[in-house]
Amino acid sequence: MAVRVFNERGYDGTSMEHLSQAAGISKSSIYHHVSSKEELLRWAVSRAIDGLFAVLDEEGAVTGRPLERAQYVTRRTVEVLVAELPYVTLLLRVRGNTDTERWALERRREFDHRVAGLFSAAVQEGELRGDVEVRMATRLLFGMINSVVEWYRPDGVRQGDGGSPYEEGPLGSGAEIADAVVRIAFSGLRAANPGPAGD
Amino acid sequence: MAVRVFNERGYDGTSMEHLSQAAGISKSSIYHHVSSKEELLRWAVSRAIDGLFAVLDEEGAVTGRPLERAQYVTRRTVEVLVAELPYVTLLLRVRGNTDTERWALERRREFDHRVAGLFSAAVQEGELRGDVEVRMATRLLFGMINSVVEWYRPDGVRQGDGGSPYEEGPLGSGAEIADAVVRIAFSGLRAANPGPAGD
Repeated sequence: MAVRVFNERGYDGTSMEHLSQAAGISKSSIYHHVSSKEELLRWAVSRAIDGLFAVLDEEGAVTGRPLERAQYVTRRTVEVLVAELPYVTLLLRVRGNTDTERWALERRREFDHRVAGLFSAAVQEGELRGDVEVRMATRLLFGMINSVVEWYRPDGVRQGDGGSPYEEGPLGSGAEIADAVVRIAFSGLRAANPGPAGD
Repeated sequence: MAVRVFNERGYDGTSMEHLSQAAGISKSSIYHHVSSKEELLRWAVSRAIDGLFAVLDEEGAVTGRPLERAQYVTRRTVEVLVAELPYVTLLLRVRGNTDTERWALERRREFDHRVAGLFSAAVQEGELRGDVEVRMATRLLFGMINSVVEWYRPDGVRQGDGGSPYEEGPLGSGAEIADAVVRIAFSGLRAANPGPAGD
């Protein structure tokens, strides 16, 4: 619930009073439950971060050829994003104004670096193309993945932030979105057998 | 300059006083220059929107096979985004709280729909894969393209918002980023000739 308020108002724009109102309790009694909004933020982004890092230890991420592992991690990252949507949304919007926010940004960087390492290994094996710089490739891939928080609405209802140019939702399940991301990112949008006049 | 302030503070968080301070003039004299911050927003997002829509009328977007046109529009959209970085950044952050913001969101939707139409035509021609729903494919593509505003810094210096998990920049020119996006989006990250044990 606090996470929804953070996502709607922005973390900076949320006060303990907003949180107590949303919880339906008095401003004084909310301090019996949490000592600060930063504590809540840490709990919420930890959930997202733990979910993402757990992927890197899964069987499919540590065994097999680098290409297979890269595809596995891509698919599972999308699935975690969808399964933990409000928490990952909050993580992706963190700005870096407090210690907790800077810690969260640091953990995101670490996750991105580990995934980039996997992609580098696949490039070295000749399984992934070498003509796109790996850091740029992983940034663009995460751009695609992370954009899902902007338009995916599990209940088909837009959230209160009003900031999306997309009116309708949902558009596929987590597994369907993960399929689409893996197909586009690894094989591209081009048809395998282009039409008669294709080049 | 006003655009930089909007991007740093967020449009909602920017007052006419912030704008006059950044311009180095008094709060009363700024009204000789602009009547409201909404007027400034409209001017700035118009610049981004006009730049994007102009792409759709260029020769490469209206002639040739749908696949070529789709690739052309993708490449040019990235180039416009990089060339008009602060204006497109502002456009992508618009939330929909005022008439101008809602108008900007509506124009973004229209642009996305026109691009999606081009991709649909390429799917019908058998030039683009049909196993990823076109709306999802264009959303993911725009996710990849639009993420560039989060990490591309033409001067190599991070902006004051502190909200990026990426420390360094730049990472390629506009043309290099456009190349990377077109390669990944249309042909995928996989090497054309996978390594010995590739499948």
